[in-house]
Amino acid sequence: MTKEFFNVTPVETIFEYIAEFSGTGTEIVDLLAAGGRILAGEIVSDIDLPGFDRSTMDGYAVRASDTFGASEGNPAYLDICGSIAMGEKPDITVLPGKAARIATGGMLPEGADAVMMVEHASEIDDMTIEVYRRVAPGTHVIQKDEDIRKNTRLLSPGTFLRPQETGIIAAMGMPRVTVYKKPVVGIISTGDELVPIERHPEAGFIRDINTYTLASAIHLCGAVPVSCGIVEDRFDPLFAAAECALSQCDMLILSGGSSVGTRDLTVEVIEALPGAAIRVHGLPVRPGKPTILAEAGGKSIWGLPGHVASAMVIFEIFVKPCIRHISGDRGAFDGNDFRIPAVLTRNLSSAQGRIDYVRVRTVEKGGVLFAEPVLGPSGLIRTMLDADGLIRIGMNSEGLEKGVQVMVMPFHQY
Amino acid sequence: MTKEFFNVTPVETIFEYIAEFSGTGTEIVDLLAAGGRILAGEIVSDIDLPGFDRSTMDGYAVRASDTFGASEGNPAYLDICGSIAMGEKPDITVLPGKAARIATGGMLPEGADAVMMVEHASEIDDMTIEVYRRVAPGTHVIQKDEDIRKNTRLLSPGTFLRPQETGIIAAMGMPRVTVYKKPVVGIISTGDELVPIERHPEAGFIRDINTYTLASAIHLCGAVPVSCGIVEDRFDPLFAAAECALSQCDMLILSGGSSVGTRDLTVEVIEALPGAAIRVHGLPVRPGKPTILAEAGGKSIWGLPGHVASAMVIFEIFVKPCIRHISGDRGAFDGNDFRIPAVLTRNLSSAQGRIDYVRVRTVEKGGVLFAEPVLGPSGLIRTMLDADGLIRIGMNSEGLEKGVQVMVMPFHQY
Repeated sequence: MTKEFFNVTPVETIFEYIAEFSGTGTEIVDLLAAGGRILAGEIVSDIDLPGFDRSTMDGYAVRASDTFGASEGNPAYLDICGSIAMGEKPDITVLPGKAARIATGGMLPEGADAVMMVEHASEIDDMTIEVYRRVAPGTHVIQKDEDIRKNTRLLSPGTFLRPQETGIIAAMGMPRVTVYKKPVVGIISTGDELVPIERHPEAGFIRDINTYTLASAIHLCGAVPVSCGIVEDRFDPLFAAAECALSQCDMLILSGGSSVGTRDLTVEVIEALPGAAIRVHGLPVRPGKPTILAEAGGKSIWGLPGHVASAMVIFEIFVKPCIRHISGDRGAFDGNDFRIPAVLTRNLSSAQGRIDYVRVRTVEKGGVLFAEPVLGPSGLIRTMLDADGLIRIGMNSEGLEKGVQVMVMPFHQY
Repeated sequence: MTKEFFNVTPVETIFEYIAEFSGTGTEIVDLLAAGGRILAGEIVSDIDLPGFDRSTMDGYAVRASDTFGASEGNPAYLDICGSIAMGEKPDITVLPGKAARIATGGMLPEGADAVMMVEHASEIDDMTIEVYRRVAPGTHVIQKDEDIRKNTRLLSPGTFLRPQETGIIAAMGMPRVTVYKKPVVGIISTGDELVPIERHPEAGFIRDINTYTLASAIHLCGAVPVSCGIVEDRFDPLFAAAECALSQCDMLILSGGSSVGTRDLTVEVIEALPGAAIRVHGLPVRPGKPTILAEAGGKSIWGLPGHVASAMVIFEIFVKPCIRHISGDRGAFDGNDFRIPAVLTRNLSSAQGRIDYVRVRTVEKGGVLFAEPVLGPSGLIRTMLDADGLIRIGMNSEGLEKGVQVMVMPFHQY
């Protein structure tokens, strides 16, 4: 049994390594199923939107100048020259002194340059309206290119497709769209003490929880988890499993090996993979110090701690941006995640030279959001169950005092 | 053409109506695919977890009392009585004056009640270690029921399955789990001016964007969108389409009909559906005042404005909680969503008696997050494209001043 020897990598550096991994290929999907995917191409408008001057109100298409001076006390009178149906190019022209009935979304006829709201006019008979307001040219009208102008670069590669981006692609008339493939992420749990969850664990054994927590986490960040099974702590089977998984997946996560001996084994196995290089072996963070990141053939290989909470925290902070990055998401590193302010409910100690990620439960009392640290060893899944987010204690801090404001990164939610 | 007549429903009331809709049925899914689903049953622990006293460190299993008084200057000497492999029930007993090698995750042998970290001991030969610290009973040990105690109620129906909940179900040995079915949500776009997106819109026509924005939004909140097509503004075809969609879906969304005439048509059609009752016809909000909510046979029917941004905003604020509710999610109404503080960059006016949802773009400058309102008619999809969240101006406010703190609800993100 050897002592713990490894040099930690600065946290910024790991993101630089992550940024070097290649993205997945592309595929064409139906636009109805494109929400949440990452756009692979560029979208440039080939039309003006809406494409014609469009009313935003129910009312009357008028010439604005005909309404100048109109008021409740001194209405203007206009002749009705027709009605504009939805979904037609009107064949009427609004001449001076005339008005045409128009509904929201209708196309403005020739001559008209504004819409008088129905609330501000009355039909005194079938032929005539009186109007009580003045409108300026353009009032209640969307100009033909006011939403999108032809030849505008609308979306660039790497854009996360929210409903609005899907909508803009629909507006461009594209029922199918090219997106990046969802990365396939293999999971191998290592440890002689692990049994498949279907089995009752005898004393000394535990069920393989990490495969399931990681599969869920992978799925929730938009990738496809593949369970590659439980492998004992021996070189040959672990090497065979890792090589096989890597050939089938875009990324490989090994979890387990929290003891120094098995951690060494994980490193040995990764180093033996064709073309593999260890990039990170140890991070100045808690929990998760023994984290490993390696590269082989452009693919990332992660060695996560076996402790269930450690593996989940490292996943949230480091593996998720990596998955988002290889998913093609240019927002993968935005890292705006610690942004919900809350008041810390107890003192927390830390050590200079490392970042602590502390599990917290947020509780609202009297309109104030409090962050209650959920303490306990990182081998306890209960600590993650009770928590709904993380706070961070920085490198140069020796701790945080009760009552200070902290910023919470919430766990996944819709 | 009639004037606008409808009574608005208080915003709190709409959530009460939503809470009355029934959930979907249940189905059994593979636990590896359960992340993000809603648990339908209850999970009670049938075992202690980890199930045996477990080391959290690499080191030596000892009797704590043997280390009392040990220090760097005055080490204690213990005889090595064996090594504990991972995944075994040790057959050794640690007698007074003895110690056994143990790795992280290993099972404590009989007699031992603490673990001495490897860093605080040296093997002076194959038979003997010297230890430099004293440890208390329980040090570096997870007790057999410290994570989860047998017969604890762990998860209740309606729980969103995050990675940690999936993990706890794995720990209970359940490879499959009963969850609520994903709701199937039908979308009908109405309007004589709409054309399928594949077609080039002639003047006066526009492409059917809403089907796509809504499909993406539905998908991103965990439901299954079904496009039921574009229907013209006439009773018979709209009634037929609505009736057919409702028979196949758990919820129906009609979008379009922003003009009073077509809005009336939507109401007429909904009222004619078997067993249907209008619950809401008009909300004191902007955008989205003409929103309709109806009920038929326990299912919800939404009439959303045709304006693309209005429909999306109403979806985020009202339809999404409804989908989450019928998905079985007991957190559907948590409404903690407006919780990212930012500084408003310009004055905004509002009116008392209504809630304004203002699209904003958040920008960080010098460590401060600013919320820049994205203004423009709600018929413009560009206003949603440029925004990354919403802020709220309350019922009793006439507006907000530049420089005040506002709370932002972010649009969907991983």
